[in-house]
Formats: sequence, structure tokens, C-alpha cells
Amino acid sequence: MAAGWFYLTCLALGSLGSLCIFFTIYWMQYWRGGFAWDSSIFMFNWHPVLMVAGMVVLYGAASLVYRLPQSWVGPKLPWKLLHAALHLMAFILTVLGLVAVFNFHNHGHISNLYSLHSWLGITTVFLFSCQWFLGFAIFLLPWASLWLRCLLKPIHVFFGASILSLAIASVISGINEKLFFSLKNATKPYSSLPSEAVFANSTGMLVVAFGLLVLYILLASSWKRPEPGILTDRQPLLHDGE
Amino acid sequence: MAAGWFYLTCLALGSLGSLCIFFTIYWMQYWRGGFAWDSSIFMFNWHPVLMVAGMVVLYGAASLVYRLPQSWVGPKLPWKLLHAALHLMAFILTVLGLVAVFNFHNHGHISNLYSLHSWLGITTVFLFSCQWFLGFAIFLLPWASLWLRCLLKPIHVFFGASILSLAIASVISGINEKLFFSLKNATKPYSSLPSEAVFANSTGMLVVAFGLLVLYILLASSWKRPEPGILTDRQPLLHDGE
Repeated sequence: MAAGWFYLTCLALGSLGSLCIFFTIYWMQYWRGGFAWDSSIFMFNWHPVLMVAGMVVLYGAASLVYRLPQSWVGPKLPWKLLHAALHLMAFILTVLGLVAVFNFHNHGHISNLYSLHSWLGITTVFLFSCQWFLGFAIFLLPWASLWLRCLLKPIHVFFGASILSLAIASVISGINEKLFFSLKNATKPYSSLPSEAVFANSTGMLVVAFGLLVLYILLASSWKRPEPGILTDRQPLLHDGE
Repeated sequence: MAAGWFYLTCLALGSLGSLCIFFTIYWMQYWRGGFAWDSSIFMFNWHPVLMVAGMVVLYGAASLVYRLPQSWVGPKLPWKLLHAALHLMAFILTVLGLVAVFNFHNHGHISNLYSLHSWLGITTVFLFSCQWFLGFAIFLLPWASLWLRCLLKPIHVFFGASILSLAIASVISGINEKLFFSLKNATKPYSSLPSEAVFANSTGMLVVAFGLLVLYILLASSWKRPEPGILTDRQPLLHDGE
């Protein structure tokens, strides 16, 4: 029964996440001229897509690995590897998303990192990189002491959720900023809510809904991996050869 | 020792919260011409101040009532009343913040509720009102069954934290949007990072730091009110006449 609800929620989450990515691609393709990797405005268009796909949807999915009922039994190491690998893929997409916007700015002699969106966004990516490397060093490599792991685990979980929240705040301010830029000299400005604005605003609200659902499953649901005791928790790393 | 750390963290939180409000007031006073309640742009200037003070700082403080060690012993009802009263004050400031922006828009024939900032902001205030009234009806009035309270408590806590996260995303997108508006025709545009932009961006980052600290104390710290059992948890409401 609980597992059934979990999979139904995952289905909702997968659909929401796919919609977030699909809506962002559609916005950029239909209203903003599509994609290229040539330092033009069409290279910039990769920025929102890669950020939503990497920093929100894949990051959110990667966070939930330990909520899968299959991960509750047996060795933890394969799930740790999956958690780290998915987050690494999310990080790579995020870095590509940064390359897209920096290349476009540098080529067009536009300043980098001046808006609050960019300050918060770059802080979020910096925290994400710290979180990944610390997580890798402390929880995946076998050298950290049990004491250190116990100390850092709640901080790792807290920052995992916080980074997702900051990513959502960055995406919201980014979509808002992009619409003000794009519709500045349009015949129908942002304030008259043309179809592009309604569509992109809805994309932002979908991203918020996706993020809240991830945080709910992560923090508030009863679908947490039962902790069978600190020793068992550490066993996979010490005994498994997978 | 734990209580000492708690009060030190509260001191940091109080300082951060005061800085958030002080920075927002200073930004509006020094760079945007100050305050009035006359439907002009000076009335708009109340909007960021009231939102940061109400929806972030007072809301954050109100959320943490049950983390005070004094609230851990004795009847819970006075703390519930304080929690509800502080949130009501936060809600009143928030509504005044909305009045400030709607009056300014209506007087200047500017559209309401078109930007993603406003969509997210109004959703956050709507969720806040639902959360307050449901919390009042279920947890403060004595009529809800124990079963319903147990069912709704984790949802109440989750939405409490979520609404704060959404408020922070709204504030970030709002500061970002305001700077693009205000510095559009300035001799030093936003992209050249004039002192106003650095100051207001820093205000946004302070709001983020404040929000993260509240969420840490709320969700991840060990400063939670020990639950002495479901029955005792309900006793104050049934037996106390305070």
C-alpha cells in the first residue's frame, strides 16, 4: 500500500519533471528561435533548459534515490554510487548551462554576474559543487570515520534540500528576468501577458510544484530508508566489493 | 550547552533578520526616495520593506516558537497562541505590503499580477492564509480530533517551511525585477553594478542566509520540542484555562 502510493507519487513527479523540461524547451524553441552552440542568443537558449534539466529535475531525482523501496534492503553502496552518479550528471548539465550563458555574454560583450539572479545562481552552483565533493569524500570513499559521517549526514541532507530550494529561487528569478528582457520592445509587452509570458510563467510555477513535491518526499514523507543501526549503515562500504 | 548554542544561533538569526529589514529600508530610503502612503512610487517602497519584514523575518521568527527551550516544558497552549499571534502579525504586514503595491499599480494604471514574481508571490500569500486558518481551526481550536491533528501536523510543518522558501524565491525575483526597473535609464545601469545594485543584491543574499538559518533550526537541528506522547501533547487544550 505504502509502496503503491510511493510509485504513484513518483509517476506524478516524473510527469511534472518531464513537463518542466518540455515546457522550457518549447518556450526557447517556439518563441526564442531555438538552439545553437555558437555564442549567439541561440546558445543562451540552452541556459534555461540545462539549468531546469540539471539543477532542478535531475538533481531532484538524484536526491530521492534512498526513498526507493528497493534501496531499503541489502547493501547501500550501489545506491550511494547511483546517488553520486546522478548528481554528477546533474552537475555536468549545470556547468554546461553556465558555459552557455557565459559564452553568450562574453561574445556579446555583456557583463557577467551582475544581477541578483546570477549572484544567487552562482552561489547555488558553488554550494552544489562543495556538497558533491564533500559527499564523495565523506560518504562514498571509505576513509571517513563513523563519527564524522554521523555528524555530517544531517548537514548533507539539509544542504541537499537547501540547494534545491535555492536552485528553484534562481530559476524563478531567471525566468522573470528573461521575460522582461525578451518582451521589452515587443508589441505585446510582459505587462499585457502575451501567450509567451503566460507559458513561461506557467513553466516557473511547474518548477515550483516539482521542487515542493521533491522536498515533500525527501523531508516529510514516511518513505525514508529505515536505519537498521549505524554499524549496518556502514557495512556496505566496508564489506562489499561491488 | 545545547541551550547556549541555541541562544547564540538566535542572536545570529536576530541580527541577520534585523539586517534584512534595515537594508531594505535603507535601500528604499537612500536610493528610491523614501516612503509615503499616497499611491505614488513612494507608497510602492513600502512593498519590499513590508514583505521582507512580514513574510520573511517575522514569519521566520514565528515558525521557531516551539524551538525555544522554555516551550519544551509545561502547557503548550500559551506557545500555540504566541505562534498563531506572531504569524497573524506577519500576515497583516504581508497584506499591507500587497495593499502598497496594488494601490501604486492601480493609481498609475500599471497592470497587476503579470510577472512570475507576482504569480509566485500571490500564490505564497494564498498558501500562507490557508496555512494560518487551517492551523487555527485544527491546532488551536479544541474541536479537531486527535487523529486529524496527528495526520495534519507533518503537513503543517512541511508547508510552514515551504511557504518560507517560496517567500524567499518571491523576494529574490522581486529585488531582481525592481533593480531592472529602477536602473533601466540610469547613467550607471544594473549591468555596471552601481552601489545601489551591490547593496540591493546583498540584501537579497542576506534574506537567503536568514531563510536558510531558519530552515536549519526548524528542520535539521536537535532543538525540537520533545514529544512527551500524543496525549500530553493535546492536554493543554483540553485542561488549561489560560
